[in-house]
Amino acid sequence: MSQAKKLDDPSSLLSNIDVFIFDCDGVIWRGDTLIPGVPSVLDQLRLAGKKIFFVTNNSTKSRVGYKSKFTSLGLDVHPEEIFSSSFAAAAYLEQTNFKQTGKKVYIIGEKGISEELDAIGISWLGGEADKAKQPDMGPGGRVEVDHNVGAVVVGFDRHINYYKLQYAQLCLNELPGCEFIATNLDRVTHLTDAQEWAGNGTMVGAVSGCTGREPTLVGKPAPLMIDYISKKYGITDRSRICMVGDRLDTDIAFGRNNGLKTCLTLSGVTSEDELMDRVPRKKGTEGIQPEFYVETINDFYPAPSDS
Amino acid sequence: MSQAKKLDDPSSLLSNIDVFIFDCDGVIWRGDTLIPGVPSVLDQLRLAGKKIFFVTNNSTKSRVGYKSKFTSLGLDVHPEEIFSSSFAAAAYLEQTNFKQTGKKVYIIGEKGISEELDAIGISWLGGEADKAKQPDMGPGGRVEVDHNVGAVVVGFDRHINYYKLQYAQLCLNELPGCEFIATNLDRVTHLTDAQEWAGNGTMVGAVSGCTGREPTLVGKPAPLMIDYISKKYGITDRSRICMVGDRLDTDIAFGRNNGLKTCLTLSGVTSEDELMDRVPRKKGTEGIQPEFYVETINDFYPAPSDS
Repeated sequence: MSQAKKLDDPSSLLSNIDVFIFDCDGVIWRGDTLIPGVPSVLDQLRLAGKKIFFVTNNSTKSRVGYKSKFTSLGLDVHPEEIFSSSFAAAAYLEQTNFKQTGKKVYIIGEKGISEELDAIGISWLGGEADKAKQPDMGPGGRVEVDHNVGAVVVGFDRHINYYKLQYAQLCLNELPGCEFIATNLDRVTHLTDAQEWAGNGTMVGAVSGCTGREPTLVGKPAPLMIDYISKKYGITDRSRICMVGDRLDTDIAFGRNNGLKTCLTLSGVTSEDELMDRVPRKKGTEGIQPEFYVETINDFYPAPSDS
Repeated sequence: MSQAKKLDDPSSLLSNIDVFIFDCDGVIWRGDTLIPGVPSVLDQLRLAGKKIFFVTNNSTKSRVGYKSKFTSLGLDVHPEEIFSSSFAAAAYLEQTNFKQTGKKVYIIGEKGISEELDAIGISWLGGEADKAKQPDMGPGGRVEVDHNVGAVVVGFDRHINYYKLQYAQLCLNELPGCEFIATNLDRVTHLTDAQEWAGNGTMVGAVSGCTGREPTLVGKPAPLMIDYISKKYGITDRSRICMVGDRLDTDIAFGRNNGLKTCLTLSGVTSEDELMDRVPRKKGTEGIQPEFYVETINDFYPAPSDS
């Protein structure tokens, strides 16, 4: 795969693209801070008739929760434009007619997942309700499992504990047909700006480690979200969709695996030195190249003095 | 590999074996209950001049802690006969001259590991002291890591939490040369007799999932413990060592990988139907066959009416 090029002709990119899919953290904001200039870029894209979606592997918020975050940062976005991995998990269960089985979901994860399951009327247990639970580990002690659990959904969970892991283990090892669904496999995440934090790869790895099972992945780089968007909005020519993100192993891999144009932004976790292989790549990002890269998405509409 | 045979000629086995290595849980005891007849079998083996060792993947106790457990069950065993995976982690660090680096160990796990590190004078942090810690995840929050950590040891930890996982993640991803050591990878363990419990595969999987790294394994089926025993006791002919255990994927694999005779006992997690492939094997045990199998180790000395 050839080296990524700096975007030097944004007007050509813009004329060849109808749909922009943006990752959020590192593209639109960093932690709780909006990246300067972003509202104006989004306004200009909309004015030019582009469709815009936001696709994030973060599962801790639902679409409605994300809408609140966008609003708090002064961005006017519709919930339908937001595809969080919490929504993706619900969409997967909907596509596979899970509700019709009458089964429940056990959640390792935060309220984004439970809110999305509530929104489509799927029963669930676990999640935030289990954050302080301890199993009875004395003689004869056991964790009682609801035998009607048909899927375990694992998303990022800062209150991961042994009770939840034992519950998931029992469901996946002992309940016939129980599905194992991961919102994402990100090794690290950005809970705060001060350092990298153990991501949902941690929680999924724990469940894989006691079951020997690999999950069905619904977040990036799996195709589920782009398939959903394409179908719902009738987008047939994927080469006219551009995925814009800061991560090679999720965003850019997602774009490349699914026939999209790809644009890396240096405003997040990937440095230009890393992209250009002047320093070693992070594990799992080796060989993944976007077609273009920008400093921030402001480069889509350079100021006249820059052009 | 040919089907396992039921041990029908114990005297021939006994005359060809100088050293017996026993797994503990499922072989000597089940949970907190001694398997009937075991003290007499061990006495007879000692009387016949056999060397006996106990090799367990359980890391929650140290050798000294195990000695107490043997004593409480009425078994007289020397600490030097006990090879727990907590000891194995310490032995690995000793073999690799870790102490001379002046570095510390971060522990995910219980007191077996910290006691073994204390016994050889290696500094450590984490473990039980971190069981109630929560990271500061507010704006600017971070987990401060001791930059002198040179290894993360991961053993079974019923108080696994996000603080410990984030600490381990930072050590392994950000401290150059930091080692990742796993006491064992057992998917499930037997905290209580009432059900199977998520084992140390859970904790190791979590750390692998946020680092992309595979650990150095010191417990079964890795060769470290048998190499240590062979060297320390000058045992050169491994075909005169018999590994006796209840698990195909740890005990029997450990024996077969290392040139030992192998004997499965049906007193633990493996049923005769599973061994004989009359029902599907558990994941990870496919194709692993012992040379012999017994109901319990009482079959080494059958009562006259049985012979």
